[in-house]
Amino acid sequence: MIANNVKRLWSEGHTVLNGWLSVASPFTAEIMAAQGYDSVTIDIQHGLVGYETATTMLQAMRASGVTPMVRVPWLAPGDIMKALDAGAFGIICPMINNAEEARQLVSCVRYPPLGTRSFGPTRVSFSAGQDYGQHADNEVLCFAMIETAEAVKNIEAIVNTPGLDGIYIGPADLTLGLTGRTYRTGFDRDEPEIVAAIQQILACAHRAGIRAGLHNGSPEYAARAAQWGFDLVTVSNDVQLLRSAATASVGQFRQLTGAASAAEVHKGGY
Amino acid sequence: MIANNVKRLWSEGHTVLNGWLSVASPFTAEIMAAQGYDSVTIDIQHGLVGYETATTMLQAMRASGVTPMVRVPWLAPGDIMKALDAGAFGIICPMINNAEEARQLVSCVRYPPLGTRSFGPTRVSFSAGQDYGQHADNEVLCFAMIETAEAVKNIEAIVNTPGLDGIYIGPADLTLGLTGRTYRTGFDRDEPEIVAAIQQILACAHRAGIRAGLHNGSPEYAARAAQWGFDLVTVSNDVQLLRSAATASVGQFRQLTGAASAAEVHKGGY
Amino acid sequence: MIANNVKRLWSEGHTVLNGWLSVASPFTAEIMAAQGYDSVTIDIQHGLVGYETATTMLQAMRASGVTPMVRVPWLAPGDIMKALDAGAFGIICPMINNAEEARQLVSCVRYPPLGTRSFGPTRVSFSAGQDYGQHADNEVLCFAMIETAEAVKNIEAIVNTPGLDGIYIGPADLTLGLTGRTYRTGFDRDEPEIVAAIQQILACAHRAGIRAGLHNGSPEYAARAAQWGFDLVTVSNDVQLLRSAATASVGQFRQLTGAASAAEVHKGGY
Amino acid sequence: MIANNVKRLWSEGHTVLNGWLSVASPFTAEIMAAQGYDSVTIDIQHGLVGYETATTMLQAMRASGVTPMVRVPWLAPGDIMKALDAGAFGIICPMINNAEEARQLVSCVRYPPLGTRSFGPTRVSFSAGQDYGQHADNEVLCFAMIETAEAVKNIEAIVNTPGLDGIYIGPADLTLGLTGRTYRTGFDRDEPEIVAAIQQILACAHRAGIRAGLHNGSPEYAARAAQWGFDLVTVSNDVQLLRSAATASVGQFRQLTGAASAAEVHKGGY
Amino acid sequence: MIANNVKRLWSEGHTVLNGWLSVASPFTAEIMAAQGYDSVTIDIQHGLVGYETATTMLQAMRASGVTPMVRVPWLAPGDIMKALDAGAFGIICPMINNAEEARQLVSCVRYPPLGTRSFGPTRVSFSAGQDYGQHADNEVLCFAMIETAEAVKNIEAIVNTPGLDGIYIGPADLTLGLTGRTYRTGFDRDEPEIVAAIQQILACAHRAGIRAGLHNGSPEYAARAAQWGFDLVTVSNDVQLLRSAATASVGQFRQLTGAASAAEVHKGGY
Amino acid sequence: MIANNVKRLWSEGHTVLNGWLSVASPFTAEIMAAQGYDSVTIDIQHGLVGYETATTMLQAMRASGVTPMVRVPWLAPGDIMKALDAGAFGIICPMINNAEEARQLVSCVRYPPLGTRSFGPTRVSFSAGQDYGQHADNEVLCFAMIETAEAVKNIEAIVNTPGLDGIYIGPADLTLGLTGRTYRTGFDRDEPEIVAAIQQILACAHRAGIRAGLHNGSPEYAARAAQWGFDLVTVSNDVQLLRSAATASVGQFRQLTGAASAAEVHKGGY
Repeated sequence: MIANNVKRLWSEGHTVLNGWLSVASPFTAEIMAAQGYDSVTIDIQHGLVGYETATTMLQAMRASGVTPMVRVPWLAPGDIMKALDAGAFGIICPMINNAEEARQLVSCVRYPPLGTRSFGPTRVSFSAGQDYGQHADNEVLCFAMIETAEAVKNIEAIVNTPGLDGIYIGPADLTLGLTGRTYRTGFDRDEPEIVAAIQQILACAHRAGIRAGLHNGSPEYAARAAQWGFDLVTVSNDVQLLRSAATASVGQFRQLTGAASAAEVHKGGY
Repeated sequence: MIANNVKRLWSEGHTVLNGWLSVASPFTAEIMAAQGYDSVTIDIQHGLVGYETATTMLQAMRASGVTPMVRVPWLAPGDIMKALDAGAFGIICPMINNAEEARQLVSCVRYPPLGTRSFGPTRVSFSAGQDYGQHADNEVLCFAMIETAEAVKNIEAIVNTPGLDGIYIGPADLTLGLTGRTYRTGFDRDEPEIVAAIQQILACAHRAGIRAGLHNGSPEYAARAAQWGFDLVTVSNDVQLLRSAATASVGQFRQLTGAASAAEVHKGGY
Repeated sequence: MIANNVKRLWSEGHTVLNGWLSVASPFTAEIMAAQGYDSVTIDIQHGLVGYETATTMLQAMRASGVTPMVRVPWLAPGDIMKALDAGAFGIICPMINNAEEARQLVSCVRYPPLGTRSFGPTRVSFSAGQDYGQHADNEVLCFAMIETAEAVKNIEAIVNTPGLDGIYIGPADLTLGLTGRTYRTGFDRDEPEIVAAIQQILACAHRAGIRAGLHNGSPEYAARAAQWGFDLVTVSNDVQLLRSAATASVGQFRQLTGAASAAEVHKGGY
Repeated sequence: MIANNVKRLWSEGHTVLNGWLSVASPFTAEIMAAQGYDSVTIDIQHGLVGYETATTMLQAMRASGVTPMVRVPWLAPGDIMKALDAGAFGIICPMINNAEEARQLVSCVRYPPLGTRSFGPTRVSFSAGQDYGQHADNEVLCFAMIETAEAVKNIEAIVNTPGLDGIYIGPADLTLGLTGRTYRTGFDRDEPEIVAAIQQILACAHRAGIRAGLHNGSPEYAARAAQWGFDLVTVSNDVQLLRSAATASVGQFRQLTGAASAAEVHKGGY
Repeated sequence: MIANNVKRLWSEGHTVLNGWLSVASPFTAEIMAAQGYDSVTIDIQHGLVGYETATTMLQAMRASGVTPMVRVPWLAPGDIMKALDAGAFGIICPMINNAEEARQLVSCVRYPPLGTRSFGPTRVSFSAGQDYGQHADNEVLCFAMIETAEAVKNIEAIVNTPGLDGIYIGPADLTLGLTGRTYRTGFDRDEPEIVAAIQQILACAHRAGIRAGLHNGSPEYAARAAQWGFDLVTVSNDVQLLRSAATASVGQFRQLTGAASAAEVHKGGY
Repeated sequence: MIANNVKRLWSEGHTVLNGWLSVASPFTAEIMAAQGYDSVTIDIQHGLVGYETATTMLQAMRASGVTPMVRVPWLAPGDIMKALDAGAFGIICPMINNAEEARQLVSCVRYPPLGTRSFGPTRVSFSAGQDYGQHADNEVLCFAMIETAEAVKNIEAIVNTPGLDGIYIGPADLTLGLTGRTYRTGFDRDEPEIVAAIQQILACAHRAGIRAGLHNGSPEYAARAAQWGFDLVTVSNDVQLLRSAATASVGQFRQLTGAASAAEVHKGGY
């Protein structure tokens, strides 16, 4: 079985840079996989992606050598096992709130006797090697997302779940979960209490001997997170990258030409 | 029928800013249509887009009020008419080399007696209005691409084709066509002979009373083109915007952290 | 955030007319959204529709101004949240049988602290506005379907679930659930005991201060339901409309011509 | 090879009733194929259908016993032969203007030595029988559309093209072609000069011993056409049937309840 | 409603031969349905198939007369009911471990009062008959997969679940479940303890008056299973058939010509 | 740019073994690309494949190192150039009948000044390298199919077309073209006159210094063709491999068990 480079990078002390795919397109997946990320995650939870296109995205990224991962929509065994059979080398599962949910997650990702994953690596045995069944439990990564007040309360129990490789923090949900509507939504939190919570979760994971990942909106924040000790940091996603780049490009043109846009000039037309 | 804002902007002296879609995804289309472009063109020629997804992209852009156009793969009547029935408000046709091809192009885009377009506006009569048949010939734009040595030779005849709204210059092909492999491929030409050719085509179009568009790789070059008098300028496309933004984001992270990428460290893994 | 017109219509005393989509096609969605319905619901439960096409349908309906809703397949958090992120302004959830299930449903639809919806409005923040996160809990509608004997027994507790906007009655399942195979399957029930049950549920909802919707097979029955006080009435679906219209059209031709059909004349051919 | 029921019905003096598919959905195809039409045509020209979904539609109609036909986008060999290999039992080709185009059309539809169709019945040999290659030239129907002034001028030569089974009249294009914008667009023409032209084409086809088909908008007009002697009549299409049925259903509800629609009450919302 | 041939074959003492689809393609489904299997199962669990393509596969197999079944991804009501509404005549549900799960499975598959299946046979009422609702509970087959140590322990209770038609053994998972990593993964087990377990489950099912199915990798093992008394045997799947046939074909050519492959000669090229 | 292994194998005297894809599925493409073929061709002509899925198939084969080629539907510039931009390293074009058509084909495949291919390697510059534009004309293969009587007559002129890399013989069409319905359709011809024609075309190509390929139905015939001197031989396709393997598997089971199939026992059921 092909080795999981994320594990190899970690073993040598590197921080893993993770890309994020929210657009349902094997071509944007192929493009993103060529930009220098160490791993790339297809977001089937909040991305506009379903199982069928996610599969073509995994196929399109195969040649890249980038570690392909999937954020699943929820802790649902069918969805998790299908993502693995389709070729994911890592699962990021949202909204793990307690030790029991963490245990169920691990159970979905590991074959017996460690877990209850059903055996049938239909595509992944083509992409990862015919000996996939023997090595998958060692190579496939399993992340529990920590993003609720309940999860923070139960963090000690969660991080000590046998078979869990790491936790992954979603700062938007975590902020909502901890403080309700007090602060703006989004990533790259500066509020001291949120930063403190993030660092506590990180420390807790490291004490338990597992890895920690953080979702970021900018390379700067990701670099700070790497300095804090995060093992894997995600920077932005294809949607935000495309949107920001297009907005900047349009803005630059408008500024250079002083031209108004159709949207300002005309309404109700095409 | 909904009016074509590109024509309205022109009538008031504005330069039209055109976006460009090469990814087959209704979601990237919806995103790009919200970034401030006046028109957005789906590239069925060099984009990785086929007819079926192009249709969902036209649907996804409908709410934006941005003028939707299509670059067709070739001067083929079936492809051109299907793009129009699906809702394109403008056709950009590649590789028009002489007056006869320009005449055929116009014929595909206009209903009798002006042309030979077949009547059956199945979707566009929903999106543009039930009176589409009466007004389409006035609202739909028809551009001939000038991008070969032969086209440059025949430019005078091409621009005087009745019913043609404008020409559109593809600088990469034009450079190849005029100078073979002398120069690098790509947009935003600086070679004096190419710049001269571009400006001659522009002047020629304006003398004939039709519009001229230019494909650009950057807002700066597009702004220069606008100053030269181009009526419509395209800036980059979704693929280049995404790629550049992702590369910049990754590079910034690598620089801030000094980290090596998996690609540099490990090969043959995932 | 764009306002939910269903709520506005209700606040002014109108009955909302809801259309229903069972065919997986963004084009039929675009057509139906132009026929005068106040809201249109994509049926991912019994419709032949999956998540990926449902998303293109939401995109295709965006320009219409019709309120887009989704009937999800089941009380499954991943499916419900993905429908919302894709742009649904209302969720109709089948087979809610008791207060606990109603509470779980509301929890999936509302952000913390009201619920546990995960934050990531990837597409809906494009279609509904960048301030979606602040207003979604006020604008998104949440309906629990009442269609089993158990639900009828627990109706009082269900309708008083905080955060629930309304109940929605599926008469086919309700009849099966209350009376087994006693009566024919289908909508537009005339059996006094079923009518009584429907009216009791309606009254119960109104007493609790929430809305009530009914699924109907004909405009006549829907009009009766509106008179009874239902706040939202669905009339038929695209499949039934198409089938009835086609059958009527064929029948009329056969009658006018006296012609037999191939099906009557030949078998085993094409 | 399965026999073509259209030919069998004709040999027994029946008029064939043809259904028409403009929506890209195997499910609407399956529904329409069950409504009593003798044949059903997938419209790849003006329908919102591409090759890939058309193939699933042909598969979905296979069980029905209805003769499946395809209207191709244009006289393009690749498109015509792909439709046949995918399972079409008849080809309707738009815009045939003269004998040479008619000859080319027949050539695309027939195997050597009658024509130049390339051999490779990949799917159709599954659906129609392994002996397809031997019988296809006898069973597959080939229709040339007559819909321009030029075609009317050349009608005598067109109908006498060896291997052509029939002509098919598109009244919307024919009216545009013969009279320009004099009359409204659409089917079911009442203008005496158009009716005369239609009947002349019909007579011309019958004198040459081939069949004639007419596209109609209503069962009444189709019944008149059958009386005139047309061998195949199309009545409406899935889009028009669905739209009319939905509009009628909504209208009936609005009338019964006196309710205004959201579109009348609120704008700019959802 | 169309009768379920699997039930008819059983009533006459036949062993049912079941085909297996792991590729997401309506064309491979159509091909496989023509090869002589009695039933064909679409594997949405380990196959690379999602709901949307599975539906086109059911449509493509309709004409064949082969009984179409679906293996669902998991015991999830939404997925099971959608497969049934789409036209499955049998459900094979993985990982049923105890009587409670078996009861839930049956409940998803049967209409009230036997179960809790929601009524809305949108497509299946077209493919199987308008009276589907009345007969479905008699015709639709419900199989629980026995493939874990826990299931073996609870086998007596599982096979006696009212409404369950049969059990289905997945030997790869069963071996993993009973013996961990002791033996190779895969089908066609020869280890005495596994064979004994398989035969015990079979005997147990027959004692309870229900059917038993076995998943096999070869016709030989399937024939042995038939002799043991299995009522339904699956032989291989489309992926394995295609892979083995292609490997054999390539191997034969290499042997006949003594030629090396590009893979042996060149690396890093295309 | 990645080198074309087919050219490298030829330069070292190897015969290239080519696989053939007729099923529209990125997964079957991925499977076939792992079976040991040197090149694999997606058949957009007779395969049930359209442009959109062909693109996902090219992506799915990228990791394999197998040379990806495309048989286009016809000599149509738009289709040929789109296949190249999507990543094809070789084009096989059907029905080239004379020198002019061969010249047009080469023109579509080569950039100026050699041809008229339009520049826009949107995906292929990701998969093959950013310097694709400089090297494509040297690496991309261009095959003209010889399969008609006219082509045989003009063979000398065709094979001497500058820029053509080889000819490719389709024996089914060639037999039809040369002898009409005299012989059965299909590959692996044994009729002396057809064998002679095949060998003459081969000799003619080699005299002109270009390559020759043959389509075969079995490894045995392909090995004979390799001995005759063919440079590239195709063996069967995914459809035939799957069908034969499934038929053999079913037949073996029926023979071992003596069981009748449902098709023999019951008709009109499912």
